[in-house]
Amino acid sequence: MKLALIRSAYSSLRAHPVRPGSRFTGFSRRCLPIGITSSRLSLRAASATSSTGTNPKLTGNFGVQSQKGDESDYDNHVRKVVQCTREAIVTLQKRNPAIQPLLAILQAGEDDSTLEINKKMAVKIGLNITQICLAKECSEDDIVEELLKLNDDPKVHGIYLHLPPGSITSRVLNTLKPEKDIEGISDLNMGRLIRGDLSKGFVPPLASAVLDLLENHDAPLEGKTVLLVGGEGPLQLAVQCLIERSGMVTLKSHWSSKTLQAQVMQADAVVLLDVGNMYVPPTWIRPGAAIIYSKPVLEKDESAFGLSSKSGLESLTAAYRTQNVVRSCSRWLKGQEYRPWHLRSLKLQPLTPVPSDLEISRAQIPKPVDQLAEEIGLLPEELEAYGRSKAKVRLSVLERLQSQPNGKYILVAGITPTPLGEGKSTVTVGLVQALSAHLKLNSFACLRQPSQGPTFGVKGGAAGGGYAQVIPMEEFNLHLTGDIHAITAANNLVAAAIDARMLHEATQSDKALFNRLVPSVNGVRKFSPIQISRLQRLGIRKTDPASLTPEEINAFVRLDLDPSKITWQRVVDTNDRFLRKITVGQASSEKGQIRETGFDIAVASEIMAILALADSLEDMKNRLARMVVGTSRSGQPITAEDLGVSGALAVLMKDAIKPTLMQTLEGTPVFVHAGPFANIAHGNSSVLADKLALKLVGQDGFVVTEAGFGADIGMEKFFNIKCRASGLRPSVVVLVATVRALKMHGGGPNVSAGAPLPREYTDENLSLVAGGCRSNLKKQIQIAHLFGVPVVVAVNVFKTDTQAEIDLVCQIAKECGASDALPCNHWAQGGRGSSELAQAVKEAASKPSDFQFLYNTEMPIVEKIRTIAQRVYGADDIELSPEAKSKTDYYHQQGYGSLPICMAKTHLSLSHMPDKKGAPTGFVLPIRDVRASIGAGFIYPLVGTMSTMPGLPTRPCFYDIDLDPVTEEITGLF
Amino acid sequence: MKLALIRSAYSSLRAHPVRPGSRFTGFSRRCLPIGITSSRLSLRAASATSSTGTNPKLTGNFGVQSQKGDESDYDNHVRKVVQCTREAIVTLQKRNPAIQPLLAILQAGEDDSTLEINKKMAVKIGLNITQICLAKECSEDDIVEELLKLNDDPKVHGIYLHLPPGSITSRVLNTLKPEKDIEGISDLNMGRLIRGDLSKGFVPPLASAVLDLLENHDAPLEGKTVLLVGGEGPLQLAVQCLIERSGMVTLKSHWSSKTLQAQVMQADAVVLLDVGNMYVPPTWIRPGAAIIYSKPVLEKDESAFGLSSKSGLESLTAAYRTQNVVRSCSRWLKGQEYRPWHLRSLKLQPLTPVPSDLEISRAQIPKPVDQLAEEIGLLPEELEAYGRSKAKVRLSVLERLQSQPNGKYILVAGITPTPLGEGKSTVTVGLVQALSAHLKLNSFACLRQPSQGPTFGVKGGAAGGGYAQVIPMEEFNLHLTGDIHAITAANNLVAAAIDARMLHEATQSDKALFNRLVPSVNGVRKFSPIQISRLQRLGIRKTDPASLTPEEINAFVRLDLDPSKITWQRVVDTNDRFLRKITVGQASSEKGQIRETGFDIAVASEIMAILALADSLEDMKNRLARMVVGTSRSGQPITAEDLGVSGALAVLMKDAIKPTLMQTLEGTPVFVHAGPFANIAHGNSSVLADKLALKLVGQDGFVVTEAGFGADIGMEKFFNIKCRASGLRPSVVVLVATVRALKMHGGGPNVSAGAPLPREYTDENLSLVAGGCRSNLKKQIQIAHLFGVPVVVAVNVFKTDTQAEIDLVCQIAKECGASDALPCNHWAQGGRGSSELAQAVKEAASKPSDFQFLYNTEMPIVEKIRTIAQRVYGADDIELSPEAKSKTDYYHQQGYGSLPICMAKTHLSLSHMPDKKGAPTGFVLPIRDVRASIGAGFIYPLVGTMSTMPGLPTRPCFYDIDLDPVTEEITGLF
Repeated sequence: MKLALIRSAYSSLRAHPVRPGSRFTGFSRRCLPIGITSSRLSLRAASATSSTGTNPKLTGNFGVQSQKGDESDYDNHVRKVVQCTREAIVTLQKRNPAIQPLLAILQAGEDDSTLEINKKMAVKIGLNITQICLAKECSEDDIVEELLKLNDDPKVHGIYLHLPPGSITSRVLNTLKPEKDIEGISDLNMGRLIRGDLSKGFVPPLASAVLDLLENHDAPLEGKTVLLVGGEGPLQLAVQCLIERSGMVTLKSHWSSKTLQAQVMQADAVVLLDVGNMYVPPTWIRPGAAIIYSKPVLEKDESAFGLSSKSGLESLTAAYRTQNVVRSCSRWLKGQEYRPWHLRSLKLQPLTPVPSDLEISRAQIPKPVDQLAEEIGLLPEELEAYGRSKAKVRLSVLERLQSQPNGKYILVAGITPTPLGEGKSTVTVGLVQALSAHLKLNSFACLRQPSQGPTFGVKGGAAGGGYAQVIPMEEFNLHLTGDIHAITAANNLVAAAIDARMLHEATQSDKALFNRLVPSVNGVRKFSPIQISRLQRLGIRKTDPASLTPEEINAFVRLDLDPSKITWQRVVDTNDRFLRKITVGQASSEKGQIRETGFDIAVASEIMAILALADSLEDMKNRLARMVVGTSRSGQPITAEDLGVSGALAVLMKDAIKPTLMQTLEGTPVFVHAGPFANIAHGNSSVLADKLALKLVGQDGFVVTEAGFGADIGMEKFFNIKCRASGLRPSVVVLVATVRALKMHGGGPNVSAGAPLPREYTDENLSLVAGGCRSNLKKQIQIAHLFGVPVVVAVNVFKTDTQAEIDLVCQIAKECGASDALPCNHWAQGGRGSSELAQAVKEAASKPSDFQFLYNTEMPIVEKIRTIAQRVYGADDIELSPEAKSKTDYYHQQGYGSLPICMAKTHLSLSHMPDKKGAPTGFVLPIRDVRASIGAGFIYPLVGTMSTMPGLPTRPCFYDIDLDPVTEEITGLF
Repeated sequence: MKLALIRSAYSSLRAHPVRPGSRFTGFSRRCLPIGITSSRLSLRAASATSSTGTNPKLTGNFGVQSQKGDESDYDNHVRKVVQCTREAIVTLQKRNPAIQPLLAILQAGEDDSTLEINKKMAVKIGLNITQICLAKECSEDDIVEELLKLNDDPKVHGIYLHLPPGSITSRVLNTLKPEKDIEGISDLNMGRLIRGDLSKGFVPPLASAVLDLLENHDAPLEGKTVLLVGGEGPLQLAVQCLIERSGMVTLKSHWSSKTLQAQVMQADAVVLLDVGNMYVPPTWIRPGAAIIYSKPVLEKDESAFGLSSKSGLESLTAAYRTQNVVRSCSRWLKGQEYRPWHLRSLKLQPLTPVPSDLEISRAQIPKPVDQLAEEIGLLPEELEAYGRSKAKVRLSVLERLQSQPNGKYILVAGITPTPLGEGKSTVTVGLVQALSAHLKLNSFACLRQPSQGPTFGVKGGAAGGGYAQVIPMEEFNLHLTGDIHAITAANNLVAAAIDARMLHEATQSDKALFNRLVPSVNGVRKFSPIQISRLQRLGIRKTDPASLTPEEINAFVRLDLDPSKITWQRVVDTNDRFLRKITVGQASSEKGQIRETGFDIAVASEIMAILALADSLEDMKNRLARMVVGTSRSGQPITAEDLGVSGALAVLMKDAIKPTLMQTLEGTPVFVHAGPFANIAHGNSSVLADKLALKLVGQDGFVVTEAGFGADIGMEKFFNIKCRASGLRPSVVVLVATVRALKMHGGGPNVSAGAPLPREYTDENLSLVAGGCRSNLKKQIQIAHLFGVPVVVAVNVFKTDTQAEIDLVCQIAKECGASDALPCNHWAQGGRGSSELAQAVKEAASKPSDFQFLYNTEMPIVEKIRTIAQRVYGADDIELSPEAKSKTDYYHQQGYGSLPICMAKTHLSLSHMPDKKGAPTGFVLPIRDVRASIGAGFIYPLVGTMSTMPGLPTRPCFYDIDLDPVTEEITGLF
């Protein structure tokens, strides 16, 4: 179980000089069984660990010591340290069975007697050891190189530099990570010791040993005089500082001092730090005085030993060294455990009137992202910074925190919106600002990454708004960390592969294709792994290319894609309407293989939906391989793996799978990750970001995420698609409503972008509000309750809303079954304006919820669609077009029948008719067509025409967007 | 000239409690003239600054002190410190006239007497002061927030925490940047002091003051006893440590000690650290003994003062505090100056046979990029990390280092290559590995970013190869830091704007267009700045939209683009041959406005060429605005600015303009930045990366960059286009030759990719080699000499080359005028294999070079083309097609006649005929067409057809590319 790596190949070292910098891991390993006794933790300096920075006095209760300490007394001291350190290891392993404290020894040359003592001690206590043996004449660079590796190795808890003193240079000391500096010799740890703060540093083991003996001397030494003889530099000062802090008085002397004898005779205790061949005659020592030799003495006089043993303090020092390793290991473990964050929130001083989003964003200086990461318990090695204020977070966090319970999972959804939008993003951001910065609860927002197209087109950015924003908003809205660009590259590689493959198949014989697809390299022909996968799907269980029959070769080389049945489109992250329908392949080099196709906006790519639903790198890779790009002439689905491109897609997407950490205006953490369409896809941010965030906030924390469109679409898909994929269960739905949208549902006139709002919307009108509440709001609350999740209604307050209107909404919402309903003012006030909402969410989340899916995926596709249409939308029934019908049959045939359903419906009405507001009834939902995203894993019925490529208006946003080349400030983004 | 910001608004503070965290910069400023005396630097602790970590003993030579020091003696001490600190400032300002040491005081509450003394002292000495006044009851968060701002402010050199002792918590101390901790109280600085390393930390000012007085006491105190009374903690220990290091013996006592009188009477000097209302009666003091009061005493006894003044040591301490600020400022300046780098090179242990590029790359652990950045003198704030091993470098470095002389500028070019390539990139990387890691000279490689298309297509990566690579090679070859994605986004936004604009113009009246382009917002109509620019180009000097005449409106709103004369293409970074020629606008929403167009590979975008040639953000923005996208029906060029999109383009490109820092396999720095096509563009990496690198390497350093294709194309463009744009002058050309290519030029059989090499290339054949040397190699050397630049020939050795072949190349190369010629083995051996080349380059660079352009840009376009054809390619003449002729006339007409020329010619021959090897003569160069990149700033004549969109082969690279989902390792990239 415990493996101590001790390299004993020193004879070969002598024969072959050590190559600087090389490790000997491969040479020899010896398994050393280590006895362990079990008991409760009583790590000696545990009290110091928790001290707040004043007195690192070590505690202990050892037996009586005589002036001439005999060996067994000294051994007793050693035994006690060994004992409690072993117990500490047992306690650690109870907290984390996989943990194994590891001491790294970095040495120059062979083992000496000191090292042997230390190794024996480590083995005895149950530490693992790794030894890095450099050549005796190694350079500073060699030492630094090895130190850097040890610093970075999370398995190493302590580093013992067993090097000639001259090699321990400033550079070496500055390289050594203070958290692993168990010798306490780095400048930072020495400073901590001097200041008396041992919550982070280490007491040098020799100093602990001296103190142990002095403090437990049979004649109490408090207030007495301790004479330090010999020694110099930091270690001497550390010993002195600790002795004085223990209430003794120190005097210092040198071996060469003429008054040494007189000083020794007056002292109550004598500590001999550098011994060499010097010794103090026993006759000098006052009766009852203690004498400690730090190092072995030449055996001139058997009677020379006081509290220490013949070999000086080496055993006790070694025992304290191991104790420091265990302490370091314990701190490391503790650092990984759940704790309420110490989040430094950024202060807001909201102005009235509220300035532009960009002005607000720019007025706030974001925390450096590495600082934010540290505050929320991420380790430096889990972070990949992208500039100063964004970082990707590695998925290894999930593994590290796997035993940590999840936080509460909150979904922000909305009532059916007006075309202007009702502010779900701002509610989401405001809510986490309130939870983290005001209620001081760990909380995370998980948001979608916006497409860059609309940023330059008509919509503007999507970072929230007012005093509830993600900052820096320009980075949020532009390239971010390149995920959408990676999706574009991956998507278009598939497209290029499709057309090139069709061309090559059209112009080459089976044999020529086979010779090119499986070329002879240095006389050897073999299939690549991706080709073997294809062979297996074709039912060909051969691996030798030479053994394929002509029929098998034909089946293998010909995907035989039907040009009229290619469903894969190219994408671009630009609003480029002229690419909606195009003809490609018109150059003569493409030999007349023209066909009609089109571009979608990048976020409409199936790869975006996959990114949002994948729950690991492997899952993403498998989904990418499964993507169906079209159908062969014989009706077989053709996948990305058939094209041989799925490995390359995974490579292109390997960084995109890591969520991006940013922050709100109040310095609280946000993950931005994935942003699939909300009609042809499921419109939710990524499963992985939610999972990471739920671990990071810990059991008392909150993760708030947002579903696109109204609750009938975004929330339904969140539950039936995203939660099904992730296995996560929501605690509360926050349903966002505005007085404006409610008035519209209550019968108010049309609301459209660009046109001024009719007076009904700016003047108080309680009956319109009540109408909207009793129709759309009520229905959306009921939809959430279908899934068994409690609802808190958040009224996103606009300045034209009257108190009576707001009160009315809250009152009716509660009548309709909402757990609570409150106004929120995050836009004008930041998190403070959402504190009451946060409190209500916290309370709702503390109640048990009883989540259930709306349908079983094993139901036939048509039944699943009907269930959603009737129970969620309120339709009487559904009606499938002939095309939809035949597609449904085809999907059942191909084995895709048990995928969940992703409805592509307008978000402007609960029905398929955008102008039917409120809660329409008595309609039959027409299903125009049914399509499938097999990689993402859902069937999407089309209810109407969905545009997947926006256009630019006559005067796009970009007219106002500019960059000051001197200040580098951006203007015109909103 | 000197501005001391002293906020004197305390009365208002009292009235309005200080809002935590707010600064009072706006309140009041007072200009304080400061007298400066000029003299040479004699900073007291200058010797300590350069000490290597042993003894920070302060030096000094002050006058004699009496036991009862009178005020004037003490004042003399103060005066001397003031004097030499002032002189230090003068010296600093001689090095950098703009420098002004700045002391930041972070205080809670109002000024007290101590602060007054410090402020007066700072003013007297000539420091600037900035005071941050927090409320008396401020929180730790408030302090930390202000500290972080002061830490980050490069103008602040020292921070004086004038806070209640209880506020100086561990967190506050850990937040304070040690380099600005002029009090020397942070743990790190305290540790440095204890260890005796003052090259980075600071001596606490009070300790300096005490030491000053003790060391300059009239009775020398070395070996004598100094009694420390009172005080505690780090400061007391610091004082004690320094006293002992000065050779005195310390004793410590407390005010409450019963033996105090006896101890005082025995001491040779007494230092009273905490005074309060205690004092030592003069009668206790031994005649001749020194007495120092650290703080003001209650004036009980006028005779109580020894070496210090009535007000204790406060003036002297304040003087030393200012000295620390000046020292900090001096270190900061020094950190920015040129120095040989302390580069930790990564060791190579080359294997035989040489493993795959990916295996070699993966076997080496790159240094963290922030460490590399620090080693080469970049400041943390100049770096924007992208993951662990790549970072963008801010252009502000250019400003910081503007007074630094440039390093030597080395161009790697090649002879005319075979289709297999002759290894310019590996030579470039091998050369910097040799220069930096083996010759220990500062050196930088500046490389092009490769397109992602070929990585998945047929060519594979471009990070060098073998043991001369950029690592991690997979990051180099994939998304890198997103620059090409940014170019794609910017390029395609222009394209979308073009087609949308044509649609809107085709479907709207002048009035409708005008109303939309200049909408009324809240009743106000105004032009955006970019529209005003267009008006000015149209000669309309109006700014009020209402004042335009219908004709002016028509001119303003109608770009009237001629669909058949649009030169702008869309781009995608994928080898997608089916997009070479397409028809767009076929959806019904585009109302029949279909047209033929196409996609290029992203790196063929003019924006890439602009990125490579821009020398500042402003220059890039102007070039982007000037890009001509097509011609109006009346023949006017239409620019990106006319489309209103140029500001948005600059915004999309704002990060791309910063070069990306990576490293070679041996840990030496590399900039990767821009990668324009080498035929339709100039094929060189960016001007900005070269400029940054030349400053960073400093005057004795080297920057090595590479030109695409053979020297006849890449080098000619490097000189005539890139050097013209940058103003930089090359020192040496390294001309890469291979025995293989030389044999081809000497008459060897055809070499083609994929086919096995004929035996002539694997067996020794000296006559073919000689033939190639005397034709192509000789000609390429001559071309370099046309520009007055010395040439070093590098023979990139392949394992089939014989020694005789290599020797022959070197011999003939020198006969042909090369300064030197050497074989290099970087591929198999890394930098060590290129050491001789590096030495030769160093020598060639030390000789004066006489650079000149080949042509004057004022020559007519045709003359410039003819000059290149005749003098570089060896053509008899040129022949323009009618289209080329009319385009040339058009460009002259439009004022583009004085742009330099960028020849789009095959790289496989010096002529336009790829199969003519050696040095062809007697041919006339046909100019098929002439085009222009007005934003990039060159005219490009087409000599033959250039493909700007590669295709995928039947079996693209992507078949072998895969990702291990567990280890995250990539396979199959090469």
